[in-house]
Amino acid sequence: MTGYGGTGYYRKNGALAAMVKRYLKLRSLDEALTLLTSTFAAPHRTERVPVIQAAGRVAAEPVYAKYSVPEVNISAMDGIAVRSRDTIGAGDSNPITLEHAARVNTGNIIPPEFDAVVMIEDVWESGSHYQIRRAAVPRQHVRLAGEDIKENKLVIPRGHLIRPFDIGALVTYGITSLEVLAVNVGIIPTGSELVPLGVRPGPGQVVESNTVMAQVFLSQTGAHCTRLPIAPDEPDLIAESIRSALKDNDLVIISAGSSAGTRDYTESVIRSLGELVFHGVAVKPGKPAMLGNVDGKPVLGLPGYPLAAQTVLREFAAPLLESWGFAPAPRYPVTIRLAQALTSDPGFDEFVPLFVGRIGNTLYGIPHGKGAFAQMATVKANGYTHIPAPVEGFEAGTELEAFLTTDSGSIGRTLFLTGTLDPALEELVGLAHDKGLFVYATNPGNTAGFLALGSNTCHAAPLILPAQSLPDRYQPLMKYLKDDVVFINIATIDMVIASVEGLGVSDLTNARFINTRRESPSRMVLDTLLAAEGIDPSQVNGYLQEVHGPPAVAAAVRNGFADAGMCTSGIASANGLRFVPVAREDYELAVRREMLADPRMGMLLELIRSPAYQNLLSGSGGYSTTRTGTIRCLSPDFTLIECTLPVNPSNLPGL
Amino acid sequence: MTGYGGTGYYRKNGALAAMVKRYLKLRSLDEALTLLTSTFAAPHRTERVPVIQAAGRVAAEPVYAKYSVPEVNISAMDGIAVRSRDTIGAGDSNPITLEHAARVNTGNIIPPEFDAVVMIEDVWESGSHYQIRRAAVPRQHVRLAGEDIKENKLVIPRGHLIRPFDIGALVTYGITSLEVLAVNVGIIPTGSELVPLGVRPGPGQVVESNTVMAQVFLSQTGAHCTRLPIAPDEPDLIAESIRSALKDNDLVIISAGSSAGTRDYTESVIRSLGELVFHGVAVKPGKPAMLGNVDGKPVLGLPGYPLAAQTVLREFAAPLLESWGFAPAPRYPVTIRLAQALTSDPGFDEFVPLFVGRIGNTLYGIPHGKGAFAQMATVKANGYTHIPAPVEGFEAGTELEAFLTTDSGSIGRTLFLTGTLDPALEELVGLAHDKGLFVYATNPGNTAGFLALGSNTCHAAPLILPAQSLPDRYQPLMKYLKDDVVFINIATIDMVIASVEGLGVSDLTNARFINTRRESPSRMVLDTLLAAEGIDPSQVNGYLQEVHGPPAVAAAVRNGFADAGMCTSGIASANGLRFVPVAREDYELAVRREMLADPRMGMLLELIRSPAYQNLLSGSGGYSTTRTGTIRCLSPDFTLIECTLPVNPSNLPGL
Repeated sequence: MTGYGGTGYYRKNGALAAMVKRYLKLRSLDEALTLLTSTFAAPHRTERVPVIQAAGRVAAEPVYAKYSVPEVNISAMDGIAVRSRDTIGAGDSNPITLEHAARVNTGNIIPPEFDAVVMIEDVWESGSHYQIRRAAVPRQHVRLAGEDIKENKLVIPRGHLIRPFDIGALVTYGITSLEVLAVNVGIIPTGSELVPLGVRPGPGQVVESNTVMAQVFLSQTGAHCTRLPIAPDEPDLIAESIRSALKDNDLVIISAGSSAGTRDYTESVIRSLGELVFHGVAVKPGKPAMLGNVDGKPVLGLPGYPLAAQTVLREFAAPLLESWGFAPAPRYPVTIRLAQALTSDPGFDEFVPLFVGRIGNTLYGIPHGKGAFAQMATVKANGYTHIPAPVEGFEAGTELEAFLTTDSGSIGRTLFLTGTLDPALEELVGLAHDKGLFVYATNPGNTAGFLALGSNTCHAAPLILPAQSLPDRYQPLMKYLKDDVVFINIATIDMVIASVEGLGVSDLTNARFINTRRESPSRMVLDTLLAAEGIDPSQVNGYLQEVHGPPAVAAAVRNGFADAGMCTSGIASANGLRFVPVAREDYELAVRREMLADPRMGMLLELIRSPAYQNLLSGSGGYSTTRTGTIRCLSPDFTLIECTLPVNPSNLPGL
Repeated sequence: MTGYGGTGYYRKNGALAAMVKRYLKLRSLDEALTLLTSTFAAPHRTERVPVIQAAGRVAAEPVYAKYSVPEVNISAMDGIAVRSRDTIGAGDSNPITLEHAARVNTGNIIPPEFDAVVMIEDVWESGSHYQIRRAAVPRQHVRLAGEDIKENKLVIPRGHLIRPFDIGALVTYGITSLEVLAVNVGIIPTGSELVPLGVRPGPGQVVESNTVMAQVFLSQTGAHCTRLPIAPDEPDLIAESIRSALKDNDLVIISAGSSAGTRDYTESVIRSLGELVFHGVAVKPGKPAMLGNVDGKPVLGLPGYPLAAQTVLREFAAPLLESWGFAPAPRYPVTIRLAQALTSDPGFDEFVPLFVGRIGNTLYGIPHGKGAFAQMATVKANGYTHIPAPVEGFEAGTELEAFLTTDSGSIGRTLFLTGTLDPALEELVGLAHDKGLFVYATNPGNTAGFLALGSNTCHAAPLILPAQSLPDRYQPLMKYLKDDVVFINIATIDMVIASVEGLGVSDLTNARFINTRRESPSRMVLDTLLAAEGIDPSQVNGYLQEVHGPPAVAAAVRNGFADAGMCTSGIASANGLRFVPVAREDYELAVRREMLADPRMGMLLELIRSPAYQNLLSGSGGYSTTRTGTIRCLSPDFTLIECTLPVNPSNLPGL
């Protein structure tokens, strides 16, 4: 056993349990935020920028108009400038011919002797003079000097976030540059496993991407971010890097080194340089968040997991800058209905990536938490929600506030699939994504897929179905939907017994088997098979040992945890296992008929039927594509019969 | 009479009415948008940018992972790597001492012979070996190779808008640069009255600010905008400028020259170069919007009035770029309740700037349309709403969708005042703005102010009140609010008879008088005065001639439309008029008591009481500040009596 560096480890009863470095005390999110924003005063750094570069910045001082706009009285209409007193009494029966008048167009200066404008529509000719038939009131159609703004009057106050249209006004009022808030942020990557951007990481290495993300995210508010060289896992070097960063920066962000691994020295380094304000916040992801106070400046510790780093950037760094007067990070709140139940750890504020999409007139959100490391989750998600600490979770159907992370147009290009996933669908989703169609597929199983279709909480349900007719167990689920649902064939899948040694049906009673859950298609194939062979499930060693699905089955067999299990031939191949086919199943996409008119479904069907997709399937083995793309309906006795239905073309907006 | 250049003018019945250039045909907003987005195909221009500069850009091609992440199996926990098959059967009564295991921390590579990790909490020491008391299932606490993403798998599809957090993922997956959509936009300012940015305009000149605004606004989406030299009002030069701009650009925006003034040649120039798609859209502001098709490229005519230009940029140029795949301009929809009725021209889609603020728990919007030229309206407003063409208007209290143009935090720094405006309040609003407190004051008069206070649709009501007690006419309005409302004195105002010649009360029967509306304080002063002097209103020539308020009175007198009128001494002075004081009125801010606890009101009171404000008032003449800042309550008989009430400190968030 190798020794352990670091401090804080001790032995007790021979257990290594206590070797785990504990967080001092988990702060609540609110508490941590209050500490953060109340401890550090704004740095009051400013800089002068040309007005044309000021969008998104915050005015550091009030800006006043250099001159009045308009500077003199000008005409608001095409017409003639008149002296209103000359027009008193004019009417249809008393036309007045004006001695004094001047032709003006919109924007023209009104000579000082005139105080009103008569629209050209209301002007007649009378010899070489103008004639009018209605009195003009003073100021009529006159843009008075200073009507928009007067010289030296306030245009934007201190603290005003400058928007593109404000810049038009600033330019109009003679402003060419202005003083805006500035802040310098130093970002230190720590960790000997890091390689810089542009270098291909070796095994066990990662690119220092969190610092790049921090730089891009915080730059949005106008912060000047400097990424410092990678500090390896040595306390002295980390300390030196922090000290150096504090010289030029108002906020130092130290990336990674704030989780509780044995290599993490940040906490002790901060203690040695100044005060540790907190380490550990009851927030998920982001628990290892850390805050130090060194010479009155904040040193914010970013966890190493990307999603945890995102939380700390969005929920700590951005609010700190906001408390200093900077623009808040843009947020697009929407109200969503949860398409699935969402559980949460009570006591933790949780941030969960969401797929937000519209089914009918309702915005649905599907939680998509795969773990704090899985960056693809936030890349694929178009929103997130915040579950407050006291909440244990929400039932499906609950209305929640969520935030979109991209334009709301993405909602119209999103399809939700709920049911049973197979690699065949992953390939399809990849093709669709490449066409700008965002497919979010979840894997709760066949039954949940039928139910989601029934409750209209998915656009389509991918299902693995045994044969030419709907099994008895699913028939009640389709009772009311029978005439409304059609099945689009994705592929035919070989179900196999997978093993290292090539075991077959007769070996099931003398091998260690690994099973899948009761409702899964592979379990149903097994049960049918055992019944056909006259084998009692109790004779199968491991029949009660369930894992989540075919991929887990294959992994368990590959790793020697079991000798055999049921999965698809594709999955068995991918895991380097031998296999004996025992059944053919159809992988079908069940959709309501009306969805066939939806251009998103039209595009999906087009992709299913494309040679590109069928080649992908053929290439991966275990799939037959002879029926791929055919549409079948349910007959009264629940058999699947081929039918022809109109499908909408696939033209999606913006594609 | 001078001649008219341009074409399309003709005479009929001696009237110049027909001289007005008519729009060919007003297109509806929808129709115009459809023409715009269906006529011009995307230019398919792309450019390669470093990943760190890709935020806000749109991927022009799918981006694939350069390698799997993680590339090998790594540990998701601090613990020991084990072979799961070695752990089968482990339990409290059957601890297993492992021959083969390796200490791993989070992120460490798991050597290939191991397939699971046991958390350090569950590990005991046994001599130089590890002992465990629970079986490990395969893959437990293992981040499998490719679990986040597999090599060559899609990271972002074509058309994906790249967000800051996406850049973290791209960097992690080995992407250092990517191809994004690009578009070149040429912006031509036309008009001999224009001067370039940085040049002080002479009288009748304006800075070419709309082109700057267009550049900044469209650059947000990643467009490369080039502002071309100012083209003077000469068809040949405008044509040459458009031809030149079309060489390098995918979209040409031609600023001004699209209104119907006599100097506007853009339409005929477009006709000479290509096809005029439309000129004139039923949208307000923005009616002169114009679209040409020259060599298959769009030439978009921007009206000269800044707010009209904004509409065309936001509602035409941005959607065109969006139809080409660019990111939509950010919009923050909110639901507001109209604090005031809003009328609209049926047949026109209207866009109205709004002040959005929170009173109690309700978001209120106050329309703030001053005309298409008044850029300060959108600078001050924090939102806008869209009134569809068929709608004639909305009653106060209607719930509408609105869009915020700035962060929602601005809502918490906004105060709504409704009642009677006086320059004294303008000065206060200026001071408040400079402190980051946004005060939106509207001027519907005293009665409307009391009503708004009663219906809780304003934070405070500025009122001009005659004396020490509430006049009879207002008492019914305060029936239910009497004990809840307090009055903060802003200043005491001299009400005067203003004239060029220094007329007094006795002159009212033999001068041309100009009056204000029935409910206005100056009208009430007049009526009281006439009654006291025994003068019947019918004896006053012009008693029935009403203008909107004291400033309009002073202007009418200054311009000779009338000989005398009632206004404040400050306004009379500002207009260079002589005046005879006839009454002293109190300018009061009526607020609900509970509002005194609001930090915004605390700040406003602090400003009212500040020497700076009192100096401003004294300096402008006509105000007495002896009572400024005192708070009075209503006694049972509606007299105003001084009272002391707790006021909240003025610390506003972010100030």
